[in-house]
Amino acid sequence: MTESYHVVGIGNAIVDVLAHASDSFLTEQNLPKGAMTLIDAHQAQRLYAQMGPAIECSGGSAANTMAGIASLKGRAAYIGKVHDDVLGRVFRHDLSAIGVHYRTPALRRGPTTARCLILVTPDAQRTMQTYLGACIELGPEDIDEDLIVSSQVTYLEGYLYDPPRAKEAFKKAAKLAHGAGRKVALSLSDSFCVNRHRAEFLEFAQTYADILFANESEIESLFQTDNFDLALQKARGLCSVVVLTRSAKGSVVVAGDEMHVIDAEKVVKVEDTTGAGDLFAAGFLWALTQNRSLADSARAGGICAAEVISHIGARPSCDLAKLMAEKLG
Amino acid sequence: MTESYHVVGIGNAIVDVLAHASDSFLTEQNLPKGAMTLIDAHQAQRLYAQMGPAIECSGGSAANTMAGIASLKGRAAYIGKVHDDVLGRVFRHDLSAIGVHYRTPALRRGPTTARCLILVTPDAQRTMQTYLGACIELGPEDIDEDLIVSSQVTYLEGYLYDPPRAKEAFKKAAKLAHGAGRKVALSLSDSFCVNRHRAEFLEFAQTYADILFANESEIESLFQTDNFDLALQKARGLCSVVVLTRSAKGSVVVAGDEMHVIDAEKVVKVEDTTGAGDLFAAGFLWALTQNRSLADSARAGGICAAEVISHIGARPSCDLAKLMAEKLG
Repeated sequence: MTESYHVVGIGNAIVDVLAHASDSFLTEQNLPKGAMTLIDAHQAQRLYAQMGPAIECSGGSAANTMAGIASLKGRAAYIGKVHDDVLGRVFRHDLSAIGVHYRTPALRRGPTTARCLILVTPDAQRTMQTYLGACIELGPEDIDEDLIVSSQVTYLEGYLYDPPRAKEAFKKAAKLAHGAGRKVALSLSDSFCVNRHRAEFLEFAQTYADILFANESEIESLFQTDNFDLALQKARGLCSVVVLTRSAKGSVVVAGDEMHVIDAEKVVKVEDTTGAGDLFAAGFLWALTQNRSLADSARAGGICAAEVISHIGARPSCDLAKLMAEKLG
Repeated sequence: MTESYHVVGIGNAIVDVLAHASDSFLTEQNLPKGAMTLIDAHQAQRLYAQMGPAIECSGGSAANTMAGIASLKGRAAYIGKVHDDVLGRVFRHDLSAIGVHYRTPALRRGPTTARCLILVTPDAQRTMQTYLGACIELGPEDIDEDLIVSSQVTYLEGYLYDPPRAKEAFKKAAKLAHGAGRKVALSLSDSFCVNRHRAEFLEFAQTYADILFANESEIESLFQTDNFDLALQKARGLCSVVVLTRSAKGSVVVAGDEMHVIDAEKVVKVEDTTGAGDLFAAGFLWALTQNRSLADSARAGGICAAEVISHIGARPSCDLAKLMAEKLG
C-alpha cells in the first residue's frame, strides 16, 4: 500500500481556554503548577467563573502535533472525538483548515466537546485543567484501519491513558501499524499522567513504541528518579529511538549507540509554553519522515517548539515550512 | 444620584473569530479590505469553511472599549445582546472577568450569539465580516435606566445603526443621560457604516453627542470628502469634543477653540489592528473621567491603542492600569 500520510496522530480532541493568571491564583485554587489535572464539568464551570478573560483556541496534544506537521507541509491525519457542538466544529475547522485529514465522527449525544482551562503565569508556564467530555467515548471502533496502515508513523499521546476506552483504540492502532511495517511513536504527555499509569506506559513503550518522546519530569517519573542521567540510561534500552526534551537546555536523542545532545533554539521572549512538547514532536517527526538525521530532526523539533512558545496558544501562528526552510535549510 | 460608573457602553455583543489571511484570499472572496461587512448565517458558515485556523476571542466595539476602561481600573458597564449559548457565555465571562458590569438578559430562543469573522492580512490590517445574530434583538427595553443615569458618560458605537431596533435603544439612552446631566459619546465605527446611515449619524451627532470619535475615513465619509482638514473643519462645530484618530499619524482633538495634535505611540511591531479605535476610546474616556486634560486623554488613548495592535485580538492582553502609570504618569 502506498504511504498516504507521514504521520497519523491519535489523541484527546480538546479546545483550549487560555487566560493569564498569577501564581497566587494557582495557590488559592489549589492547582498543581505546570501539570495537567482532570476535572469534571462542575469543576470546570466553577474554575472558569474564577478565571480572567480568556481566548479560545483548538488544542489537544497530538492534534497540536498534527497541526504542526501540516504547517510544515507534511501529510498529517488525526483521530479524536468531539461532540457536534460549537466547540467541536471549531476544533474540526481548525484542523481541517491547516490541512490535517480529520474524519472521526462527532458525537451527537452525550458529553460536550472537551475543554482545557489553561492558566498562563507570568513566568510563561502553563497549568492545565481538563474536562475530557466527548473524549471518553473514543474507542477501537474509531480507529480507521486504512489510515493507520497508510501512515508512515502512528503517533499516540500518553494522555489517552486517562479516558477509559482509548487504551484499546491505542493498542489496536499500534498492532495495525506494526502489522503493516509502520512505526509507532508515543509521547508521555505529563508526569502526573505517567504517575497514574506507570506500569502500562512501561509495558506499552517496551512492546509497541519505536519512538518515545518525554520531557525531563516525565522520564524521571517513569523511572521514579530525580536524576536525569539515570533516567536517560534506563530509557536507552526501552525503544529504538528515545527523544528527551529539556526546555531551555535543549534535547537529547538516543538510538542504540547513537546519541545527540542538541541546544535549544533561542527565543526572544517566552510568552506561553503551552504546546512546546507537542510542536517539538511535530518538527522531529516531520524531519524524520523526510529522511533527515536524528540530530537534524531534534533541531527541527527545537525550531517548532521555539515558535510556539513565543506566542499565546498551542498551534503554530506562522508558516512553519517557511520558518524551517530559513532555519534548518 | 451618585456616579456608580465612569462609562456605560452600548453595542453589538460579538465573539471574534480571528485568522490570518493573504490579500489574494480577500480578493477571491470579494471582501472589502479594512471594512466591516454584514453577512447572514449562511454566508458566515461558507466563509468560515474557507478561512484558515482561527482563534476565538470576545469582541464587539463598545465591549472592547469597556474592557479597556476596566483594565485601566475605571468603573465600566455594558449593555448588549447575546444568546444563552456557548459563545454567549464566553462573551459574558470575558467582560465580567475583567470587571465590567454586564447584566443584559441573554436570549433563550432565536438567533445565536453574534460572530465576527476577522481576517488579518500580512500588513496587520483587519477585514471584518459580521453575522449579527442575537444583536438584532437589542431594543429600548434593554436600556437599564439606573445604569445610564448613574454613569458619567454613555458611550454608543455607530455599528448599532445596523440592527433594526437598537436605534431606539440608543436614543432612549441618550435622552436619559442628558436628563441626568451626563455626557453622551458616539463612535462612528466604520466608513461603510457611516455611508449606510449618514443622515442619521449627522442628526444624532448634532442633537445628542457631546463627544464624537471617528477615524480619518469615517469623518471623511460623514462629510463626503477625501480631504481630512476639510472634514476636520466641518466636524469642529458638530459636537463639544471631536476626537479624530489617524493610525500612525496620531490623533487630533478639537473642542471649541481648543485643538491638540498628538503623535502616535511607538509600536515595535504591529500584529493586528483589530480594536485600535476601540482601545483609543477606552484610554481617552478613562482619562477624561479622571479629569485629565484633552491632550493627556488623547495620549492615553494612543497608549491603549498601541498595546492592542501589538498582539492578535481586540482586548488588552496586559494590565493597562500599570502600563498607563508607566507611560502617562
